[in-house]
Amino acid sequence: MAVYRVLIVVFVLFLTSSFGESFRLKARFPNQRTSDHEIAAKKTICPYCKYETKYYEQKLDHFNFEKNETFQQRYLVNRKQWKTGGPIFFYTGNEGDITWFANNTGFMWDNAEEFGAMLVFGEHRYYGETLPFGKKSYESPKYLGYLTSEQALADFAILIRHIKVTFPGAKNSPVIAMGGSYGGMLAAWLRMKYPNVVIGSLAASAPILQFQGLTPCEDFYRIVTDDFNRDGGKPCTDSIRKSWDIIKKLKPTESGRRILSKVFRLCSPLQSEDNVTVLEDWLSETWVNLAMVDYPYAASFLEPLPAWPIKVTCSKLQNEDLPDIALLGAIADAVGVYYNSTGKTKCFNTSQQAVSSLGDKGWYFQACSEMVMPLCTDGKNDMFYPQKWDFESYAKGCQESQKVTPLQYWVETEYGGRSLEAHSNIIFSNGRLDPWYAGGVTTSVSSSLVAVIIEDGAHHLDLRHKNKNDTPSVIRAREIEKHYLHEWIATYNENDTKKVLF
Amino acid sequence: MAVYRVLIVVFVLFLTSSFGESFRLKARFPNQRTSDHEIAAKKTICPYCKYETKYYEQKLDHFNFEKNETFQQRYLVNRKQWKTGGPIFFYTGNEGDITWFANNTGFMWDNAEEFGAMLVFGEHRYYGETLPFGKKSYESPKYLGYLTSEQALADFAILIRHIKVTFPGAKNSPVIAMGGSYGGMLAAWLRMKYPNVVIGSLAASAPILQFQGLTPCEDFYRIVTDDFNRDGGKPCTDSIRKSWDIIKKLKPTESGRRILSKVFRLCSPLQSEDNVTVLEDWLSETWVNLAMVDYPYAASFLEPLPAWPIKVTCSKLQNEDLPDIALLGAIADAVGVYYNSTGKTKCFNTSQQAVSSLGDKGWYFQACSEMVMPLCTDGKNDMFYPQKWDFESYAKGCQESQKVTPLQYWVETEYGGRSLEAHSNIIFSNGRLDPWYAGGVTTSVSSSLVAVIIEDGAHHLDLRHKNKNDTPSVIRAREIEKHYLHEWIATYNENDTKKVLF
Repeated sequence: MAVYRVLIVVFVLFLTSSFGESFRLKARFPNQRTSDHEIAAKKTICPYCKYETKYYEQKLDHFNFEKNETFQQRYLVNRKQWKTGGPIFFYTGNEGDITWFANNTGFMWDNAEEFGAMLVFGEHRYYGETLPFGKKSYESPKYLGYLTSEQALADFAILIRHIKVTFPGAKNSPVIAMGGSYGGMLAAWLRMKYPNVVIGSLAASAPILQFQGLTPCEDFYRIVTDDFNRDGGKPCTDSIRKSWDIIKKLKPTESGRRILSKVFRLCSPLQSEDNVTVLEDWLSETWVNLAMVDYPYAASFLEPLPAWPIKVTCSKLQNEDLPDIALLGAIADAVGVYYNSTGKTKCFNTSQQAVSSLGDKGWYFQACSEMVMPLCTDGKNDMFYPQKWDFESYAKGCQESQKVTPLQYWVETEYGGRSLEAHSNIIFSNGRLDPWYAGGVTTSVSSSLVAVIIEDGAHHLDLRHKNKNDTPSVIRAREIEKHYLHEWIATYNENDTKKVLF
Repeated sequence: MAVYRVLIVVFVLFLTSSFGESFRLKARFPNQRTSDHEIAAKKTICPYCKYETKYYEQKLDHFNFEKNETFQQRYLVNRKQWKTGGPIFFYTGNEGDITWFANNTGFMWDNAEEFGAMLVFGEHRYYGETLPFGKKSYESPKYLGYLTSEQALADFAILIRHIKVTFPGAKNSPVIAMGGSYGGMLAAWLRMKYPNVVIGSLAASAPILQFQGLTPCEDFYRIVTDDFNRDGGKPCTDSIRKSWDIIKKLKPTESGRRILSKVFRLCSPLQSEDNVTVLEDWLSETWVNLAMVDYPYAASFLEPLPAWPIKVTCSKLQNEDLPDIALLGAIADAVGVYYNSTGKTKCFNTSQQAVSSLGDKGWYFQACSEMVMPLCTDGKNDMFYPQKWDFESYAKGCQESQKVTPLQYWVETEYGGRSLEAHSNIIFSNGRLDPWYAGGVTTSVSSSLVAVIIEDGAHHLDLRHKNKNDTPSVIRAREIEKHYLHEWIATYNENDTKKVLF
């Protein structure tokens, strides 16, 4: 969910921004997949991943003392392996139901015993059950104003204090923040803004540099293209690159759209050019998602997929010289790897406009306020259709759809951009296959701001449960990460004063 | 003003908290003195201290993206000595008119040439001319909700970015924050929260540890007592210690109050026991203020005073065995050193309740929301009447008078309490005579978090203009400070990448 949502929204915003006229921010979240996630969230993936569900009363606005409204923040706790005074691994929840993250962050469960660690998963405000205004939370920008990363970080800092003060034996426990994707950004930022609260952070696939002026906007899609090149060669990427022009040619006419509907086995026939735009977005999104979940074993992170799914996808795209319609047919087959690995999907759903999950709505608001991540393509160095980054039209779209004006430079000022030298004790892990690698911290800044690269890893592979098909690079990455965690904890424990870190 | 206000409010809150019944938060700010400050603010103390006055449009709420209200932040700039690319010394304005701080921070003016530095003084929101809601700003807690240190820090960070982006040649200038008292706290916190924006901070007499659980509440008044002991010996402190009981005896009767009014030469006779309480507070406050401004030369920081004013004050209190009324007379003479050094004051004004200066009102709100600084006395180890720290009654008083509930632990969580190790490049200078030394960082935390002690210095003496009567300890302190500033700047300049630090 983490990544998925980050990606999707940014991706969608990007795509739509150059379409100019309509800002279809609400498109592109097929309910079907959202529901899958919701089901997944309720399933406990590992049998020993059991937690208590707790709630803490948080201030709605930590930065305004005239306001006294509060809400219940959900958090999950496992103390089974915890030894009194032992560390607390605190997952900084991202834009979704916290149970989903608890179930998809195997690294914490796998290592609880070795560290004698308490596991805590803090839910991000406005997601899952942590809805400050209940069902009304998404009804108006007025309610959504309190959905910011700064407020979420303050929630986490205060929740950690609460846990240390109220859980017997936890007063002197060192706390380490962990998170992936947006949750990884929050883990890094929590250490940066509240180094008194967490002794260090594991920020997995955290694109804290995917902001204005910090990272070339084209890097993201080039990585996706490189992944497809790596596993499928030029025939694969050329097939995809060619497909856009073919679709473009068929787009304006009714007969063309009929062909597209048929070739792509769409549940609802394409009625308009706008519908075709949605199809284009859906295809782009699929290629990106495949790059994010290109794991070495069969997994169901976003969708149930085979091992190395890009390899399987590209196996359907090995002849870029096919006639137009046949090439589109191959594209449809390739897309089927992502949406129809079970073979049960009768038709594809690209045009569902409704956003059923609160998580999606929340991220739309965040992407339209502070989380403005520029992305672009040129169609030459990447396999996508060319799209410039255009902040003005992005902003216009946000104003229209979210009634909010995005801030182009706020995140850089608030969280430091590339000026990270003053910070310490953060591991930035990045999968080389992950498009979000582009905006990650991929070079160590100092001996305690460490970049860990997982050569054949996709989006926060290291945070997942260990697996017999794990590649040496992710096994090594986890070892390095554990080395630092042990080191931080030892340094903290050597400190005689045993200060209570609040 | 800085300190003065910090002190007064905390002091008043403390005094009144144990009086229980009435929470006279608005008392104890004689207009006369406030007006003096306002006049002082308009005077340029050094002839070369000239600045341009500028304004920048700030967001009212940096942590809520649904809100778009803005206000004009005033800032003062001097570029006379600045060399392109040279450093920017940025004064983080405290709770008052920024022109007053510009005129009372001689250190910046005295060193502009040596550093080739641009000087900028940023006004704190809700003070001076920087009133987000104009004259209405103080009318309701609703408007005051945006008066927080977090918002003020974000203002400063954004203002610095604006200056670097828009002032020709400033793009790569390293910025160093400077401030005294609450301004010093802000300078330290700015470096802690925005190390990307300032390469270091000089935090003079910044009591960042004067918060719940971090510093014994009795330390503050013991330092005042020590100062009086040092310069006036036991007779001086015993005289003051004895005075409280004498006043207490005279307090309940009309004839007693008549005597007090006469002995203390009050402009308005004491009509009630409450009036006597105001007199008691006024006396306590005077002793504290004297300790804060116990400078080695005649100065007009809070009031026009002779050099080493405690020495002069205590010279009036060398016989603690005087009969009761004669002892009070001596106390009145001693107080006269503070309020009547010019000899022009005909009577003393202790009971004016009105608060004419917005600055005072603003600090009341801050002290009643996040800036909760516990203080207490026992009357034995200090020369004051015994007062316990009682958060509950403090909170009750705040709710009644300010319609706001103070947060006991927020500042510790938000700004780190004593867990400062992760930070860097902050000089904490503390005058050993200054009561705020109690809550200062007085031991170096690391090689770049340095405590500088000025043995015979009062409240941020080091930030004042150099003076021919400066003691060796303050001269040395300024040299140490400059050494670090040069070092930080050199390190920044050695960095080839010349990153724009936002």
